[in-house]
Amino acid sequence: MDKGRLNKVLNPKSIAVIGASDDLAKVGGRVIHLLRRGTFPGPIFPVNPKREQVQGLRCHDSIGAITQPVDLCIVAVAASDVQAQVQQCLDAGIGGLIVLSSGYAEQDNEGAQRQAQLAELVGRYNVPMIGPNCLGVMNGNNGLVASSTFSIIDRQLLGGTLSFGTQSGAIGTYWLDMVLAAGFGVANWVSTGNEADVDLAELLDYLVDDQQTSVIGLYIEGIRNGDLFRRAAIRALAKKKPILVLKAGRSNIGATAAASHTGALAGEDTLYQAFFEQYGICRVESLTEMLDVSRVLLMQPVQPGRRTCVVSVSGGAGVLVTDAAISNGLDIPEFSPEIKASLRNILPDFATAQNPLDVTAQIATDPDLLGKVLGVLVASGEFDEMIVFCGALGNLQQPLAESIIHGIENWDRPCVVIWQANRPVAMKLLADAGIPVFSEIPPAVAALARATRMAGHWYKRPPEEPPSLPRSNDSSAAAISLTENESKAFLESRAGLQRPRGVLVRSSSEVGEKIRQLRGPFAVKLQSPQLLHKSGSGGVLLNLADVAEVTQAVANMLQLGKSSLMDCEGVLVEEMLSVQFEFLVGLRRDPVLGPVLIVGRGGVSVEVDPDVVRAFLPLSEDDVLALFGRLRTSRLYSGFRGKQAAPLADMVRVVCSLATLFQSDDTIREIEINPLGCEARGAVVALDATVWLAA
Amino acid sequence: MDKGRLNKVLNPKSIAVIGASDDLAKVGGRVIHLLRRGTFPGPIFPVNPKREQVQGLRCHDSIGAITQPVDLCIVAVAASDVQAQVQQCLDAGIGGLIVLSSGYAEQDNEGAQRQAQLAELVGRYNVPMIGPNCLGVMNGNNGLVASSTFSIIDRQLLGGTLSFGTQSGAIGTYWLDMVLAAGFGVANWVSTGNEADVDLAELLDYLVDDQQTSVIGLYIEGIRNGDLFRRAAIRALAKKKPILVLKAGRSNIGATAAASHTGALAGEDTLYQAFFEQYGICRVESLTEMLDVSRVLLMQPVQPGRRTCVVSVSGGAGVLVTDAAISNGLDIPEFSPEIKASLRNILPDFATAQNPLDVTAQIATDPDLLGKVLGVLVASGEFDEMIVFCGALGNLQQPLAESIIHGIENWDRPCVVIWQANRPVAMKLLADAGIPVFSEIPPAVAALARATRMAGHWYKRPPEEPPSLPRSNDSSAAAISLTENESKAFLESRAGLQRPRGVLVRSSSEVGEKIRQLRGPFAVKLQSPQLLHKSGSGGVLLNLADVAEVTQAVANMLQLGKSSLMDCEGVLVEEMLSVQFEFLVGLRRDPVLGPVLIVGRGGVSVEVDPDVVRAFLPLSEDDVLALFGRLRTSRLYSGFRGKQAAPLADMVRVVCSLATLFQSDDTIREIEINPLGCEARGAVVALDATVWLAA
Repeated sequence: MDKGRLNKVLNPKSIAVIGASDDLAKVGGRVIHLLRRGTFPGPIFPVNPKREQVQGLRCHDSIGAITQPVDLCIVAVAASDVQAQVQQCLDAGIGGLIVLSSGYAEQDNEGAQRQAQLAELVGRYNVPMIGPNCLGVMNGNNGLVASSTFSIIDRQLLGGTLSFGTQSGAIGTYWLDMVLAAGFGVANWVSTGNEADVDLAELLDYLVDDQQTSVIGLYIEGIRNGDLFRRAAIRALAKKKPILVLKAGRSNIGATAAASHTGALAGEDTLYQAFFEQYGICRVESLTEMLDVSRVLLMQPVQPGRRTCVVSVSGGAGVLVTDAAISNGLDIPEFSPEIKASLRNILPDFATAQNPLDVTAQIATDPDLLGKVLGVLVASGEFDEMIVFCGALGNLQQPLAESIIHGIENWDRPCVVIWQANRPVAMKLLADAGIPVFSEIPPAVAALARATRMAGHWYKRPPEEPPSLPRSNDSSAAAISLTENESKAFLESRAGLQRPRGVLVRSSSEVGEKIRQLRGPFAVKLQSPQLLHKSGSGGVLLNLADVAEVTQAVANMLQLGKSSLMDCEGVLVEEMLSVQFEFLVGLRRDPVLGPVLIVGRGGVSVEVDPDVVRAFLPLSEDDVLALFGRLRTSRLYSGFRGKQAAPLADMVRVVCSLATLFQSDDTIREIEINPLGCEARGAVVALDATVWLAA
Repeated sequence: MDKGRLNKVLNPKSIAVIGASDDLAKVGGRVIHLLRRGTFPGPIFPVNPKREQVQGLRCHDSIGAITQPVDLCIVAVAASDVQAQVQQCLDAGIGGLIVLSSGYAEQDNEGAQRQAQLAELVGRYNVPMIGPNCLGVMNGNNGLVASSTFSIIDRQLLGGTLSFGTQSGAIGTYWLDMVLAAGFGVANWVSTGNEADVDLAELLDYLVDDQQTSVIGLYIEGIRNGDLFRRAAIRALAKKKPILVLKAGRSNIGATAAASHTGALAGEDTLYQAFFEQYGICRVESLTEMLDVSRVLLMQPVQPGRRTCVVSVSGGAGVLVTDAAISNGLDIPEFSPEIKASLRNILPDFATAQNPLDVTAQIATDPDLLGKVLGVLVASGEFDEMIVFCGALGNLQQPLAESIIHGIENWDRPCVVIWQANRPVAMKLLADAGIPVFSEIPPAVAALARATRMAGHWYKRPPEEPPSLPRSNDSSAAAISLTENESKAFLESRAGLQRPRGVLVRSSSEVGEKIRQLRGPFAVKLQSPQLLHKSGSGGVLLNLADVAEVTQAVANMLQLGKSSLMDCEGVLVEEMLSVQFEFLVGLRRDPVLGPVLIVGRGGVSVEVDPDVVRAFLPLSEDDVLALFGRLRTSRLYSGFRGKQAAPLADMVRVVCSLATLFQSDDTIREIEINPLGCEARGAVVALDATVWLAA
């Protein structure tokens, strides 16, 4: 894929509109109207064989009739006519396409076929196409409004550095409206529609390199090309270019609706969540939150570090800010003796020099006090972030705002101001001075904390890029599960995974002979690929003491298998191991996001009270060790209360060899080991395991 | 305490202001100014011996010089003069006091003493006093502005049914400003200040019965009278009068600052959280959230029930609303076949009749479609709540808003509208029609869900009221802990709690004789009140097989006790029990909130990965059973995967007998049983226990 190919769509020199109209009720009328209302400097060529002129512009019979070169062609004709028009565009050598027309995969099967043909056509010419069924694109820096939406007709597009890609046109218009209303400008805005050709991943890839874009926002229902998305996200980290996503479908019911909405294959939301966390992408819950975080990123020198000072004109509000800061992962360290001494020279006697700092009602008679206090904190160098709280104080807006601006003029780190109970004079003064100002505590603190957390990713060792895998869309293809015994044998031979000593028996009469070398107590387990959850079904007995008990159990289980008509490999008899720690290790392939590792507390808790973390391959040994550290119960494994620590280094090696196997052989569809036990003597042993192979 | 006694403060017929001034920079100047700017109809008597007139009103030399009766007296003189002035007021027979002056417990020890004297004085006369160090009170329904704050000087007080009590004057002014800016009116507003006499609990008690108040908001740093607060909250449930609280100090660091802010004893935040949940009080994280929930409560017929329908003009937004609804505990049930059939007659062919419902871009040409769809859902009777999403659509604001209003005119249940990217015309039309309208999804959905959840409490059996306990402020008094052996003996004799069979041995030589009656394996535990966490210290050995091993262990432990100079009762040798479930049961007395029960998963997880719930006594057996059901791991105890269920009925009886004991004897300061085990045969046995008694 040519990385610059979206240039002709987002920075065209000339534009043709197929299906141009004078009627603003029609898409082809609105497009021309909005293009002309924008400040796009290049020529606009309406195309419509039935007209001489459209909205005052000379109209052309066909794209071929235009004698000048055309970079971008916007198609706004009925779906049934699109294919022929696009063919003409391609023949005419245009550089990029936007198909606004609907009537494709979002509508019915016939539309889906039409869409596949269109995608095949533009793919053959390697000409980028946005849509179909989209609202088009905008570029605030060249005045391009190539869109059919009238939703923001009362706003003027401004140039800027925020870019947004959206799989919902409507959500795109809300974002645009909110960003413009907040006074920010837009670099690129793209409604990707049905993504028959250009998808969000390709757009992201473009925006990461786009010089005009400093912050990228995305509305996602489903990613189509996880590989490209991941590579782009990793490059964005290196460039310190933040990516914010609003992802629909956190609830299952939502995910279903999202799938039917644009035909995107909805990935499981927990995997998306892990994906975003791993690649430093900030997930927000609303457009307002996205705008809040964008505000901090655009206006402040965001950097890692959690040491936060809180200065407030109200003691109570200072505590509320502190509550929000702590719950967002920021620290509120105590002031050093030096700071306390300096503050005591400034503050009234009844004030306490502590973090959060209450400057007291004294500021009503001495507004400069606030700035002096901030100056002390700025000079201290003890903090990474600053949060200033004011509220109401109608008659003191101007002096207090000026005091804040003066107080932090030498501060080179992020600061946010909260002005509770909106006060426009103060808020405008502060915003004009480049300080992000909010009217409520939790959103302000969350935005600052999120921006800071993103910056933390910029200075870590970047995530490893996976080898370029073929996009596997065959996840629905059948997989077959191996029995426990087969799975353990497979993992032992392919990844050196240890298993308990045991034998497979096929009749009760051979038990005595076969288990002679084994030491009790015994675990006895029926082996059948149809019996995945053995423990509830009578297919497992534990702690059997001797040959007699095992023989009886084997006889019963074989009878059970026979009577329930299962395919039985036999019965596995194993030595029971005393294990101190039980983990779950899972490896699976998400059809879009790729191979993923899941580690967590093992045993029955996986279902009842899961404590698991997920991360996508490839992962280094350090990465895997860090995953164990992120478990809620991680303290249990690090030698809690004088108990033995889990042999995590051994565990990590085992997990990494499994991951290497899984990455190297994509006929392995899934591996689940639960529990993977740590023996008292330190060995890591698979107590139960299942492997699924491609059929 | 006389329940009507706040009437003279909040509904006075006449007011005197001690320390009246012409100077608006002085408290006594601002009070007169604000009183006169309000619409309070009764006489206002300035008192200041140095003046003839104040702000155009005739001034009096002293309170005694006023010949007419005075209901409310506002004191705005220096703290050093307050006591004498208050004495004169009391002698003159005034009905209520507001002391605005600062310089009390918030300042220093001297101030705290001054405050205690003042409290003693007004207590002797049983005259209610608000403050000192407060911002006063307001009553929008009689135009009373008895306050010194100029923060809201640019707002006009409106009458209404929202009331607010606040332990921070500043937070009170922000609330007032936001409520008035949103167009709502105020019944009572009280800044309680240092609460030397009237505290939040007394105010709440008053507001619960106040006919003018329909929704109560509170800003809390610490409750002083938990008993009264609880009784008032329980009465509010019976009256279906919602209580919303913003409680500072969720983080520990915040709690410390809160304590120093008003001198309130900060309770542990988790106990407050449990308290609020138990008594149906809605805790919010910000004033904006409080206003959001208030908006729904004031404007809509809130009731229990989670079946929610979502109607949206954008598919993507419908999914986001659904995500928010599910995460807030609402359900999005499928439409019945009847609804689907009705909708198919209305919707365009390409729309899908599902919940969440996307009415598609069709509404751009047919705005009535939205109302028709809503009408079908209203008529179905299948839903408890409705959420309608619109956004932008500048030119369609009026027809769409009217369509919504028309569509839900027969709806007798709560509905909220979200209009993303603020559109004032539509939002005003909807608000004027009594429909709460929000500009963002998560706050709207959270407000609706919270209001609904509160209503759920109104129809449950009301919580039991505790017997009136003396307010115990002696929590800091010393308590002594019993050893495990003593604790178990105490609980066995007083509450019938079973313990494992065992003996106390005082020397290793008597082991053989003493444990002859017991069956191994054995648990051996050193008994000393100084050794509370035995397991990390060498004071516990488990699974010892025979007399020899036990004898050796006893010898070692006695030596350990001797060498570490602990008081040793001896060594407890017990039969090891095989238990299937381990719980923690704790009982403690919060000095403010009262006796509380804590139940949860037992063992080491209490520290590493706690799964506990808390509830205040008294509790019925049903209540306690419900507590076990609220544990994260509750499925483990109800017969998960064919395993044996925990004998919860037995467990509940044991817990209730412990709770009864704890309630009946307040010399028992704390009980902790961890683990309380369930034996395989069903018996409930204390494996470890500690009791603390008042010294």
